[in-house]
Amino acid sequence: MANVLGANRYGKAETRVVRIHRDTDRHAIRDLNVSTSLRGDFTAAHVDGDQSHVLPTDTQKNTAFAYAKRHGVSSPEDYAVALGRRLLEAAPAATAARVTVEEYAWDRIQVDGSGHDHAFSRRGTETRTTEVTVEGRGTDEEVVVTSGLRDLVLLKSTGSEFTGFLTDEYTTLAEARDRVLSTALTARWTYTGDTGPDTDWDGRHAAVRRTLLAGFATTYSRALQETLYRMGSAVLDAFPEVVEVDFSAPNKHHFLVDLSPFGLENEGEVFHAADRPYGLIEATVRREPDARSEEPGRQS
Amino acid sequence: MANVLGANRYGKAETRVVRIHRDTDRHAIRDLNVSTSLRGDFTAAHVDGDQSHVLPTDTQKNTAFAYAKRHGVSSPEDYAVALGRRLLEAAPAATAARVTVEEYAWDRIQVDGSGHDHAFSRRGTETRTTEVTVEGRGTDEEVVVTSGLRDLVLLKSTGSEFTGFLTDEYTTLAEARDRVLSTALTARWTYTGDTGPDTDWDGRHAAVRRTLLAGFATTYSRALQETLYRMGSAVLDAFPEVVEVDFSAPNKHHFLVDLSPFGLENEGEVFHAADRPYGLIEATVRREPDARSEEPGRQS
Amino acid sequence: MANVLGANRYGKAETRVVRIHRDTDRHAIRDLNVSTSLRGDFTAAHVDGDQSHVLPTDTQKNTAFAYAKRHGVSSPEDYAVALGRRLLEAAPAATAARVTVEEYAWDRIQVDGSGHDHAFSRRGTETRTTEVTVEGRGTDEEVVVTSGLRDLVLLKSTGSEFTGFLTDEYTTLAEARDRVLSTALTARWTYTGDTGPDTDWDGRHAAVRRTLLAGFATTYSRALQETLYRMGSAVLDAFPEVVEVDFSAPNKHHFLVDLSPFGLENEGEVFHAADRPYGLIEATVRREPDARSEEPGRQS
Amino acid sequence: MANVLGANRYGKAETRVVRIHRDTDRHAIRDLNVSTSLRGDFTAAHVDGDQSHVLPTDTQKNTAFAYAKRHGVSSPEDYAVALGRRLLEAAPAATAARVTVEEYAWDRIQVDGSGHDHAFSRRGTETRTTEVTVEGRGTDEEVVVTSGLRDLVLLKSTGSEFTGFLTDEYTTLAEARDRVLSTALTARWTYTGDTGPDTDWDGRHAAVRRTLLAGFATTYSRALQETLYRMGSAVLDAFPEVVEVDFSAPNKHHFLVDLSPFGLENEGEVFHAADRPYGLIEATVRREPDARSEEPGRQS
Repeated sequence: MANVLGANRYGKAETRVVRIHRDTDRHAIRDLNVSTSLRGDFTAAHVDGDQSHVLPTDTQKNTAFAYAKRHGVSSPEDYAVALGRRLLEAAPAATAARVTVEEYAWDRIQVDGSGHDHAFSRRGTETRTTEVTVEGRGTDEEVVVTSGLRDLVLLKSTGSEFTGFLTDEYTTLAEARDRVLSTALTARWTYTGDTGPDTDWDGRHAAVRRTLLAGFATTYSRALQETLYRMGSAVLDAFPEVVEVDFSAPNKHHFLVDLSPFGLENEGEVFHAADRPYGLIEATVRREPDARSEEPGRQS
Repeated sequence: MANVLGANRYGKAETRVVRIHRDTDRHAIRDLNVSTSLRGDFTAAHVDGDQSHVLPTDTQKNTAFAYAKRHGVSSPEDYAVALGRRLLEAAPAATAARVTVEEYAWDRIQVDGSGHDHAFSRRGTETRTTEVTVEGRGTDEEVVVTSGLRDLVLLKSTGSEFTGFLTDEYTTLAEARDRVLSTALTARWTYTGDTGPDTDWDGRHAAVRRTLLAGFATTYSRALQETLYRMGSAVLDAFPEVVEVDFSAPNKHHFLVDLSPFGLENEGEVFHAADRPYGLIEATVRREPDARSEEPGRQS
Repeated sequence: MANVLGANRYGKAETRVVRIHRDTDRHAIRDLNVSTSLRGDFTAAHVDGDQSHVLPTDTQKNTAFAYAKRHGVSSPEDYAVALGRRLLEAAPAATAARVTVEEYAWDRIQVDGSGHDHAFSRRGTETRTTEVTVEGRGTDEEVVVTSGLRDLVLLKSTGSEFTGFLTDEYTTLAEARDRVLSTALTARWTYTGDTGPDTDWDGRHAAVRRTLLAGFATTYSRALQETLYRMGSAVLDAFPEVVEVDFSAPNKHHFLVDLSPFGLENEGEVFHAADRPYGLIEATVRREPDARSEEPGRQS
Repeated sequence: MANVLGANRYGKAETRVVRIHRDTDRHAIRDLNVSTSLRGDFTAAHVDGDQSHVLPTDTQKNTAFAYAKRHGVSSPEDYAVALGRRLLEAAPAATAARVTVEEYAWDRIQVDGSGHDHAFSRRGTETRTTEVTVEGRGTDEEVVVTSGLRDLVLLKSTGSEFTGFLTDEYTTLAEARDRVLSTALTARWTYTGDTGPDTDWDGRHAAVRRTLLAGFATTYSRALQETLYRMGSAVLDAFPEVVEVDFSAPNKHHFLVDLSPFGLENEGEVFHAADRPYGLIEATVRREPDARSEEPGRQS
């Protein structure tokens, strides 16, 4: 009745790589949090303490910095593909490398109406994300690119209801015909097709993000579930290169404060923003199976 | 080329339920953070905005509080099983309910050498966890109980090395023959067999935890991977009711500070504790397949 | 040798007041985190457990919500002045009320090139702050308004040096002639003069903020200390209604990564962004004493 | 109308110094977060960008590490006094040095009933703190040692009421005759008298902490204010070397959940633990002025 090693993975998490492009006086900045990990046959390291097939996480960190220079960071996706390939090359026992990148956006500081050459302010809490998996090498290589965003905090002050729900003996919630809807959106979408160096990853990301925001703003919401589904559908309809959109969305409750004890009306004007508990909605929207002529992420 | 709803789930996260048992003057406290979610056929809510099959997350929250009273909290596991069953009963469209509980431990305040009846201090960062899934109803019911702990911060000041690893052109790490090993352990283990009301969940949890701690302390470490594997094996060897142990363990680096510019030796005495980046080791240890005569979590 | 009560203060912290102005279809939102506290003779509450002079913190919370409706939130400053006055009116034993407000900014979501009427996205980590103290009542009333911002994360990719510093036996730092300078700025400035309802607090805040940003961008920095001093001076020079600017600014170190072991140059292109430790610079810039013809915060 | 530099201070924050004492096989660990800062005449650095009197924060960090070895860490207080003195010695333009230390406690891992020699688990969220100020040099030197603790989370499940408070038109709170009282205590106490190397700082700290805990447990509470006052008085009565105790204590509200809609009684058994808002009580307890024969912190 021996024990065995099951699924495992190891790597270096949260290497904070800042890449400044300074070829001209007008600098540009890419501010990244990079995590890498390897999967494969690492039984000897676990069972026998034998490290001979283990590419140390310290080396993975060094490679993350070196590739920011050697390959450059034209986009988080392009950088992650190159870094993932390199790690697979360096670690023969690995069957797959995963590179996860968070990017923090910076704006140029406005001085006399125009953006400064080398002074920046950080945009906010929202984070751009990408997760790239490189599996196999050479002609067997399969690259899957999933991009996304995190902590995009959204709110609608009207155009949202929640009615007609199931009730039981523990129900106290009243139906709401006009409520505040707010979430801190995490969305991830998976691309199909080409992942080559000419892909306009930045342009794609900006366009998908705009579509998600417009979907949130313009959809009348009968539930956060419905809003998410419409947002995901809008992305799939507009971007043939996206095969699936995945959401995780807390319902950040804004409770109408009862001001009647103080002789005041409150027609949707004063709310208490609660921290916990919160609703949590997770949903995936994808193309109908027969509509997927290409396999996701298979690089031609 | 229509779009379809893929995997989805919804519920109420982080309901902070505090249950005080005060049947006698010697009170007891169970301090819980409860998250519930339902999985099943909720297509109408997403696609048509129809909530008639949706048990609101507000009702899930109410049920979490009511069951802390009605069923009681003899242990997080027992409470979670009962709550999961109730949610499935209340939501016919759901096929499975998941209840996740974090528990924060409290110690009695010592006064004149003995623990006070009703005054407590919170123990620390370490959190006891459980995740219960109830799938199906009645004779088709399947209950899986996974318990664990999170943020158990451990450190060995010696008895750890890291040598013999793979090197490449990006290697700068030197071999370490005596280093500090530290982690903030997340461990989860899945029970097989009975999940009935007489199960001593508290006793089981304490015993597994002790085994993990002793494994960390007494294993000479040639890598964090090896230490985790030994800790998991020790649990499987000692507890036939556990079928699998799952770890996620950051390698919290403690770098020896170079004091030689100041004419000082530093033989493993002064370290810089780094926050980021950190190694991240994930591994599962389980019984050999043929050794599993019972299916995990199937309740007899 | 009896003991006595020294300085004390009590109140309600972090009431999350969201005020939506919906007089027209184009909604506006003010998203506030409000903390109130009272100072005065509360000895009986501490020494004798007598609460008869204590306005409960629960009532302070209610008042914060009620005043968001009754008085409205034309600006955090104006709302805080009104709320502070009310709390002093309600609690005769108090000699002073302090109201601290953090405001989180929201942008309208852009749809087809214009801002949506009632859909918003939260701008970022930067927080607008104000702290108002109301001391005394009626003709003895003194109101001091200090406004500011927090977590404004700034970075210059060039135009910063650090040279010519004091050295001793523990010095290892090399002089830097071109470095990255980054901080997460907290700034607070105190207004003199009128605090009446016609004050354009939003306009003032925006103008001071622009001046701080331009100061950071356009100052060649020989130390973060110098940059802060110049930023504060620029505010004092441009805004006669400001008497003092106070800064707390971590020096968020960006270390140039040594890529030479990998045969790569790194001329200010690849940096490691460190979390801890960080420099911490605190400084106040104010007008020369004899230049202050008006006392700070004295309301005429 | 020139501007001038007001109060200022600079230093290195949050240097994570881990000191392992390994003179025997039974190791001991002191895990510190050290912040240092200097005050004095640093006008040139701010106004002229002249760094010649500035001891870089990088050097302050080096000194923190070097002193962990050179002086050792018999206690955070003793280490902070030595480090503060050294920084004043190294920076002639400084008039005072402040050293703030947080200490994280570790327990030996229990193996077969006894504590392991070199394996530890971190105790919890509670942090031991000290803040030492060294002002002047040689015979003019004045050392003030303030020690304390932070995030000691306490709860009483009974023995607490809140009644007889002031009411007004915004009052909705009902009187509570038996409630849960909970706080996350920050306490700081200032020592008078000797700060020399033979002072038993660890013993003092443990004894004051025990007194605070017993005070919380055994005091019937008519308000958190009263409880804090009694806790502080107990410390002053028991420890002549303490001249003042300072508290900052959030009132962590535990709301009784209304289970009556579900036909359930709730006699103080099921609570909702709220995050925000919370009450915040700040108070100082000190000896009556004429009882202070010695000046605080003056070293003989």
